[in-house]
This record gives sequence, C-alpha cells and structure tokens, in this order.
Amino acid sequence: MKQLRRTASLATLLILCVFFITACAPKGSPSNEQTQEEILAVLNQQVAEWNRADIPAFMETYVKGDALRFSSGGNVRRGWQETFERYQKAYPSPEAMGHLTFVDFEVMPLSEEWAQVHGRYILKRSGDYSDATGLFTLLLQNTKDGWKILHDHTSAAE
Amino acid sequence: MKQLRRTASLATLLILCVFFITACAPKGSPSNEQTQEEILAVLNQQVAEWNRADIPAFMETYVKGDALRFSSGGNVRRGWQETFERYQKAYPSPEAMGHLTFVDFEVMPLSEEWAQVHGRYILKRSGDYSDATGLFTLLLQNTKDGWKILHDHTSAAE
Repeated sequence: MKQLRRTASLATLLILCVFFITACAPKGSPSNEQTQEEILAVLNQQVAEWNRADIPAFMETYVKGDALRFSSGGNVRRGWQETFERYQKAYPSPEAMGHLTFVDFEVMPLSEEWAQVHGRYILKRSGDYSDATGLFTLLLQNTKDGWKILHDHTSAAE
Repeated sequence: MKQLRRTASLATLLILCVFFITACAPKGSPSNEQTQEEILAVLNQQVAEWNRADIPAFMETYVKGDALRFSSGGNVRRGWQETFERYQKAYPSPEAMGHLTFVDFEVMPLSEEWAQVHGRYILKRSGDYSDATGLFTLLLQNTKDGWKILHDHTSAAE
C-alpha cells in the first residue's frame, strides 16, 4: 500500500514537471518569414486601395483609435479620424490621388507584437497635380485584426 | 534501501521541478519608467554634444555598425561611418551646427530590446545659416553599451 502511494506520488511529480516545462516553453511564435509576408500583404493592400481611390478601404490598414500618429514634414496628426479627414481633404479626387507605388521595402519584425517597415513611395499624377516621392517609416502592431499601422512618418524628397 | 532510493528520487524530482519553474519565470525586466529615463538621457546627451559642436561624441549615441539607417527627406544613409561623414560635411563649424533643442518627446518602449521615440527638433543658427525645425522618429536598441539609435528618420518642416 505504502509502495503504491510512493509510485503515485512519483507519477504525479513527473506529470507536474512535464506540465510546467510545457507551460513555460516559448509560445509557438510565427516565423519571421510569415510575419514579413503578412506585413507585405498589408502594404500591398494599402497601395491597391489607394489606386482604386478608395480612402475608407485604404484607412483600414491603420489602427482605429486615438493612438494612431501620422507625421509628415513638420506636422503631426493624431487619431484615426483626423488622419482619415486629412486624406479626404488632401486627395479629393482619383486624379489627386494618382497612381501609387511602394519600393525598397525593409520589414523588420521587432517582437510578436511590433514591426518596423521602411520604404519609398512614388506617386505619379497628371493634370494639375505634380508627382511626389519620399520615404516612410511605419510602426505596425499585431492586433486581433492582424497587422495594422500605428505610427506613420512620411518625408517628401526635397 | 529500496525506500531510501525512492525518497531520493522524490527529492531529485522536487528539486528539478523547482529548478525548471525558477528557470522559466519571466526575467526581472526593467520598469517602463527606468527605460524612459535611460532613453531620455541618451537624447539629452545627443543635444549636449551637438551644442558643444562635438560630432564624434554626438555620434556615440548611434549604433556603431552597418545596420545604422538615417533617413531624411528622400535620402537614406547607411552605416555609422557614412552618417558620421555626412554630419561632418553638412556641419563643418560650430556656427553651422548652431543651437539644438529637442521638444515634444514621446518615448514608447516596445520590448526589452526596442523602443521608439518621437520628437521635434529646433535648430537656431546665426550668420549665413538659417534656422531649421522638423520631426524625428527613432528606433533605439538596448545594446550591451546601453540604448543606442539604430534608425533615425528626420523630416524638415516645409
């Protein structure tokens, strides 16, 4: 009887050990490659929606909330709503929006939650609107709705 | 004898359990406040060295290596050496360097290794040199030598 109890105790301890070792192992993190693909999909979606002149759909790639920060030149805009309204005002027509391309991507996953992206935008426009190009640095957050842009810093080439 | 071995096995298992539980507990991470203080110290050092017109000391706040990336306007400079030489060329004298102030800091620790900083620079100059202002977004890395700037995106106010 005593021996049976000891064997049971040993078994319980073994199970506990296995449980703790399993529980505290690093969680299955997505591969770097998978993160890169997910983020490139978000950026490709941005470009596609822009080139469809669909600003509401374009804005789906940003974090919806007050924490969104959009810096360009010397100006900071805060919050999803303000950024949305600024885009609507600055780009009132498909002609004003022109045709957008992103090149020179550099995606840098920082953790399971954060990634930084660098790239260059090229905007081709016609009519009264001039072409534009420059650099962007994005901070993306892995939200429950997937990777979304929380901070966007854009600078026009001089 | 058999009982002694069982007791010894039990003790060994207990010790193993304690060892694993301890080993896999989250490491004591520095507080958010401490990280903020450390990063603000780096930025204050940058400003102080700049205002002493000491570019080599100013450059100590950047990661020394090829991974350093400095974006401004539409230009990307890569590596510590290239960034250093660009600063030396663009700011050949204390008069060209002027007096620098950073305002509107926002320090955002992302993990134990990474933090993002936003801010605004104000450069006052005299003589032939004009004043300048704009925004910066920095990615800082917690290296063995403390927090250092790995990516710097600066945009001048238009």
